[in-house]
Amino acid sequence: MKAFKSIMANIKPMKYCLKIEVSLKPGHSNPEGETTENLLKELGYDVDSVDVSKVYTILLEAKNFQDAKLKGVEMCKRLLANPTKDNYSIVIEEQK
Amino acid sequence: MKAFKSIMANIKPMKYCLKIEVSLKPGHSNPEGETTENLLKELGYDVDSVDVSKVYTILLEAKNFQDAKLKGVEMCKRLLANPTKDNYSIVIEEQK
Repeated sequence: MKAFKSIMANIKPMKYCLKIEVSLKPGHSNPEGETTENLLKELGYDVDSVDVSKVYTILLEAKNFQDAKLKGVEMCKRLLANPTKDNYSIVIEEQK
Repeated sequence: MKAFKSIMANIKPMKYCLKIEVSLKPGHSNPEGETTENLLKELGYDVDSVDVSKVYTILLEAKNFQDAKLKGVEMCKRLLANPTKDNYSIVIEEQK
């Protein structure tokens, strides 16, 4: 039991960098993208479409990769993404 | 010359998808990130830092990959990024 405890004490939480991209679901109105598209066209660029999304770069501690992923999904559901109108994608990187 | 013209006519412009990420340079105030960080902490997440950036997903026509890259850099300089406070990165994908 003592040995087990000392092993557990040695498992330090790791740092992970989560890049969470939150974008509008297709079909939702995207005024910022439309404005940018019009401005780029006025500047002479042959642009077909512009979508604007937001990226949260979050540095956090987690037990392991799975735990970091779970936390990322939870954070999207609880705060960062609106399930009615937003899609999200998460890219996770272990920090050294 | 006729043959050359007919070859040139066959070079159709390609479609490219540019993902342009515009983020604040280090040291600039990032109120949205700070607010998100505080909210995540209140929800019980052990978050070290949160940065918020914007991604423009732009579909456009260009002669080739180099041309698409050049247009992307130009668009950043002319409209999308503020050189005083913003960094930008561009990822380009050829559309099929």
